[in-house]
Amino acid sequence: MTSILTLHHLEYSQSFRVLWMLEELKLPYELKVYARDSKTMAAPDDYKLLSPLGTAPVITHGDLVLAESSAIMDYILDSAPENSLRPKETSADRARYLFWWHASQGSMMPLQLMTTVLTISQKRLPLLMRPFVKLYIKGLNDLFIEPRLNRLLELAERDLAEAPWFGGQNLSAADFLIAFNLIVGAERDMITAAKHPRCMEWIAKMKALPSFASATEKDGRDSMALSY
Amino acid sequence: MTSILTLHHLEYSQSFRVLWMLEELKLPYELKVYARDSKTMAAPDDYKLLSPLGTAPVITHGDLVLAESSAIMDYILDSAPENSLRPKETSADRARYLFWWHASQGSMMPLQLMTTVLTISQKRLPLLMRPFVKLYIKGLNDLFIEPRLNRLLELAERDLAEAPWFGGQNLSAADFLIAFNLIVGAERDMITAAKHPRCMEWIAKMKALPSFASATEKDGRDSMALSY
Repeated sequence: MTSILTLHHLEYSQSFRVLWMLEELKLPYELKVYARDSKTMAAPDDYKLLSPLGTAPVITHGDLVLAESSAIMDYILDSAPENSLRPKETSADRARYLFWWHASQGSMMPLQLMTTVLTISQKRLPLLMRPFVKLYIKGLNDLFIEPRLNRLLELAERDLAEAPWFGGQNLSAADFLIAFNLIVGAERDMITAAKHPRCMEWIAKMKALPSFASATEKDGRDSMALSY
Repeated sequence: MTSILTLHHLEYSQSFRVLWMLEELKLPYELKVYARDSKTMAAPDDYKLLSPLGTAPVITHGDLVLAESSAIMDYILDSAPENSLRPKETSADRARYLFWWHASQGSMMPLQLMTTVLTISQKRLPLLMRPFVKLYIKGLNDLFIEPRLNRLLELAERDLAEAPWFGGQNLSAADFLIAFNLIVGAERDMITAAKHPRCMEWIAKMKALPSFASATEKDGRDSMALSY
């Protein structure tokens, strides 16, 4: 395919990780930035129509329209076979890379998504319902969400004590994928220096990459996700 | 590594998809089946201790202990480089494969997990809270979960009209991964013949594979997931 890949970047969304990885790879691409609706904060209609899932990120490349962060990142890495962001099948880092590459979206993001949905939705409730629903959500959080998130973050602390990056000895696609989870998690106090010093060190190291500065400049926003 | 790979299979869990793919590949492996606690239906303590995330599936291979369905399946496929379950980077099916391979865990499972957690948790509530929480959960379902699931299932119907398998022209790892989502989804009336005829046809085709019969025999259970 000779056409140029276009990243459709929705502000304050998971598409930041794709933008960041593209900057790291120094690949040619076009960037189209979409603003959220200023009242509802939802994606604008043209974005929802473009995206197969109605969500960010999305890329287009010739006739292809592709959604899903990890799928997009694998597709981009396919197009740059000399990249070093995917440990080879024979690498000693392979299993660790595969774990974090998949656990970021398969285990961590579902818990973070649940927290976001529960947090936002309870703010819109009638006053009468609110105390009951708050109690219910606290239960979900204490019994299900937090224990699972803590276990994942303990694993992250343990692995980062053994090797500097999520994929092992070298910076990998897993770092760019999980960066969204952890940086947003730190902004929302899910990750703290007291409990997760190695995750916080890793975040500082990721933000010191020149690709973070250039991605942030192209994004033009002050953070990756909306606060709530 | 010369040691044999062991699949630690928790009954009625996502580890069924790994068992099924191992049977399809006809690779040598050891199977250890774990029963759930008959009262709480939780994984037994030895499983929780073994698993890095406390959840199924888990494999061990020499010193390696690996969790996360997709990571385990990629690791197994690495060990059988002649397999045809991962379309090559140059294949016309590659982008479609990558989408479903990642969307199964990255987009569909989080919604199904949320439904499961909300359904089970509301049954344990004090009577006084129940009507309020039910109303709240109905709102989450109507406004967030169902529209997103429907969009994914519409995409699945469209793609299965174009090519017979989730990864395109040939059976792929994406089929074994999403099989858990869709078969459990059909058991729970998320997928119906009236609305999703092609998904139902695909389920029938998957269940007609000899590897389904042998995996089911080794599993020894009547379904992949618990009913609730």
